[in-house]
Amino acid sequence: MQGATMGKIGVFDSGVGGLTVLHALHRRLPAEPTVYLGDTARVPYGTKSPDTVIRYSRTNARFLLQHDLRLLVVACNTATAHALEALQAELPVPVIGVVEPGARAAAALTRTRRIGVIGTAGTIASGAYQRALAQAIPGAEVVARACPLLVPLAEEGWTEGEVPRLVVERYLGDLRGSIDTLVLGCTHYPLLKEAIADVLGPQVALVDSAEATAAAVEDALRGRPAAGGGTPTRRYFVTDVPARFPEIAARFLGHVPEAVEQVDV
Amino acid sequence: MQGATMGKIGVFDSGVGGLTVLHALHRRLPAEPTVYLGDTARVPYGTKSPDTVIRYSRTNARFLLQHDLRLLVVACNTATAHALEALQAELPVPVIGVVEPGARAAAALTRTRRIGVIGTAGTIASGAYQRALAQAIPGAEVVARACPLLVPLAEEGWTEGEVPRLVVERYLGDLRGSIDTLVLGCTHYPLLKEAIADVLGPQVALVDSAEATAAAVEDALRGRPAAGGGTPTRRYFVTDVPARFPEIAARFLGHVPEAVEQVDV
Repeated sequence: MQGATMGKIGVFDSGVGGLTVLHALHRRLPAEPTVYLGDTARVPYGTKSPDTVIRYSRTNARFLLQHDLRLLVVACNTATAHALEALQAELPVPVIGVVEPGARAAAALTRTRRIGVIGTAGTIASGAYQRALAQAIPGAEVVARACPLLVPLAEEGWTEGEVPRLVVERYLGDLRGSIDTLVLGCTHYPLLKEAIADVLGPQVALVDSAEATAAAVEDALRGRPAAGGGTPTRRYFVTDVPARFPEIAARFLGHVPEAVEQVDV
Repeated sequence: MQGATMGKIGVFDSGVGGLTVLHALHRRLPAEPTVYLGDTARVPYGTKSPDTVIRYSRTNARFLLQHDLRLLVVACNTATAHALEALQAELPVPVIGVVEPGARAAAALTRTRRIGVIGTAGTIASGAYQRALAQAIPGAEVVARACPLLVPLAEEGWTEGEVPRLVVERYLGDLRGSIDTLVLGCTHYPLLKEAIADVLGPQVALVDSAEATAAAVEDALRGRPAAGGGTPTRRYFVTDVPARFPEIAARFLGHVPEAVEQVDV
């Protein structure tokens, strides 16, 4: 115990997906003040080039640093894949991404070392999960697959029934029986966990990287609880007008965000 | 006949969708030189605010004007909805959007004046088609509906089989029998024309706004053919690295684009 510490947990994502990470953080660390930035003007990152993603990530981090951070979470797989190292090297606070916690959770769960990982085209093409899994699980056989339709399905709220089951079957049906662990390498995918579990069956453990990342943050802050009592501050910023943000955000966060402010980063 | 005219037809879109318009232009006006700009660094426009879309449209138009234009096509429904009037007022060449040609084609086809229009959330929320249809078809009853999953389905190339049919059924099944004309108010949707026709049946006429827009361009240029013979120039620009662009573009254009250059607008 090093005594109570001031400062907020900052979380950024290209849009709403990172709210699954924030939701997991709120459940695990309810006393910590948080500040979220969804870069909704420039979403999605998954189809953009590494240089562009690094540039956007730097502006997001710079904006959040103005809000008295004690720790920054890069709650976007694409931004983690391309920009985490740069941000860790440049910023004055600890920076945690979503890739390594997911890979370590997979290492703890697998018995056969045959692992699947799914994400956006950008995340999968970056090879970040493949590298992290190879490092966390020596001798792992990794099947990596881009599933571009799962993000719009989650945002549309079509998470149950025939459509998500058929889409997941088409993406992942052939992996049934050939892997024992699947890493959900996109912050949107926890919303489709049931459809994915239905298709892959109970023999395949699913790693929710939002949960794994929240656990990594808890580890990093252990012994240094938030200062002050009462309800902690929870601020939400977006870079484009928040028109549909509250409605979509509620699906990810479990409730409508208290207030959403538009900013130019 | 006012004699042959120099200059290219410029076409911009937020990404690849406008290639369906370009494809229709190439079929109708094979001798016209064209220059295409896909704003792939800032795609999609459909979720962005009107001000942001106008700002982006201006920079796209400015870029294309440097390439000796005789006419500009705004081949993006969202950009047409928000920025067409501003561009028509500001630019030194004729500017044609995709909304009005689609509405006029619907007017020519409907008998019952019960019309449907589908598009992205941004296009539908803008009300641009609803206004254009009300003007083109006095007394029209218009059902407007956002179908966010159709763009990623088209880009993924899942245009046939059970998944697109089920998705379209969920979006449009209740319109069977209640409309006689449906405007495909998004440049991606022509790729899903068969699935949409299967769901709605032969009683519903589909308006492909890419075709309708190409016809409007042909009208505007009538009597002023392109100068010069031989194969016309066809240039393609994108604002982010063209990694997956050629592959996806081929689905929209019917062939892999000759060469794709990255630019900063």
